[in-house]
Amino acid sequence: MDYVKQRRTIRKYQKRDIEPNLLNTLLDTSARASTMGNLQLYSVIVTRDPDMKAKLAPAHFNQPMVTQAPVLLTFCADFRRTSIWCEHRKAEPGYDNFLSFLNASIDTLLYAQTFCTLAEEQGLGICYLGTTIYRPDLLIDILHLPRLVMPVATVSVGWPDEHPEQPDRLPREAFVHEETYHDYTAEDIDRLYALKESLPENRHFVEINHKETLAQIFTDIRYTRADNEAMSATCLATLKRQGFLE
Amino acid sequence: MDYVKQRRTIRKYQKRDIEPNLLNTLLDTSARASTMGNLQLYSVIVTRDPDMKAKLAPAHFNQPMVTQAPVLLTFCADFRRTSIWCEHRKAEPGYDNFLSFLNASIDTLLYAQTFCTLAEEQGLGICYLGTTIYRPDLLIDILHLPRLVMPVATVSVGWPDEHPEQPDRLPREAFVHEETYHDYTAEDIDRLYALKESLPENRHFVEINHKETLAQIFTDIRYTRADNEAMSATCLATLKRQGFLE
Repeated sequence: MDYVKQRRTIRKYQKRDIEPNLLNTLLDTSARASTMGNLQLYSVIVTRDPDMKAKLAPAHFNQPMVTQAPVLLTFCADFRRTSIWCEHRKAEPGYDNFLSFLNASIDTLLYAQTFCTLAEEQGLGICYLGTTIYRPDLLIDILHLPRLVMPVATVSVGWPDEHPEQPDRLPREAFVHEETYHDYTAEDIDRLYALKESLPENRHFVEINHKETLAQIFTDIRYTRADNEAMSATCLATLKRQGFLE
Repeated sequence: MDYVKQRRTIRKYQKRDIEPNLLNTLLDTSARASTMGNLQLYSVIVTRDPDMKAKLAPAHFNQPMVTQAPVLLTFCADFRRTSIWCEHRKAEPGYDNFLSFLNASIDTLLYAQTFCTLAEEQGLGICYLGTTIYRPDLLIDILHLPRLVMPVATVSVGWPDEHPEQPDRLPREAFVHEETYHDYTAEDIDRLYALKESLPENRHFVEINHKETLAQIFTDIRYTRADNEAMSATCLATLKRQGFLE
């Protein structure tokens, strides 16, 4: 449990490669994660080729980890392999629908997170790129993802070349509810977000962006309504293209 | 890494309770998982009350783990707490859309899977209930989940009272692709599914269900097109009800 307690996301990596045997052991062992009906509804695309990283970078808004990490992993919800298996076995697959996308996404994220936990236990550093579902259409073209395959998470992996401060987390009572959901009063919000709002780095961030509150950093700059709505449309159109939505 | 290699899903639990301190430590430590913008877009509802378990059971198709496990955890994608925070801080949240549901779901599943890995490391046994997204509407009513909160995974947790055989997994080449997705030929499928199809328990399962192939067990009995399409409609309608879809 201690290495999880001490973990931090790593965005800077040594030039040192990840030995194929280590990566393969991690990819194998992670497959012990829970999976629906033991179908393993995921695929992972391993990117080591610098040319491929350069192609992927714009789809990830040119975050530097994409080209600097020795390995990039794109975890995909995959009902294609299972469906092809069915077709070769006189069985008619019915997985071109939204529920199947969610089922496969859950499988995929349990696999991805098991990989990350194990990788960190081995001393590797990882970073999730949330951008994967911002422009999944670009990733599909670059990685040649066929119908019933949808990218849901990308992780950069490498040997750490930094040791950043551990970020704050909300107190447990902010996200754990006993028996039923207990809604938040203004006083709850003040108490639960007090630490986060008081941190010097967050106050500095508010100041240099000429904002009044930390929350405005999120709503006005980092995750705006306009961006969210545009990317929702892209995401839904891509689900249709991949056969997961009518 | 060894306890992940040796893990198996546990569906039978001792009557022994889970000490609140242990559960809280696991819930706290799991919050170290990666999270978008450090927003922790999740909530977890802890069910210990037998009456609540009895209410939840039908929503989970009366799987016995729901009433027999000492603790049931319902992990929810949650943009409500963040949105309320914004509203109290002169910030206008724009998270009532599909992308925000996916972002929160990813956060939620990374948290849930970190919890499961840590719980197993402590000797606890867990089982994911895939039924959570089959009838999310029922769970929302029972757990009083408000707008912008959507259940995505339920896990039963307890001290193991069984030691089942470890199930098979596909070989790595079935789900790992180098640089680009490599599609599957009939020969690939034969090779990759040979072990699974040869297992005595799977052959037995095919026989007692009077089917011709193992794949037909999935398409005709366990995960049928009709069920998937009906539950897709429920799921999409529930996302609309919770404010994540127009």
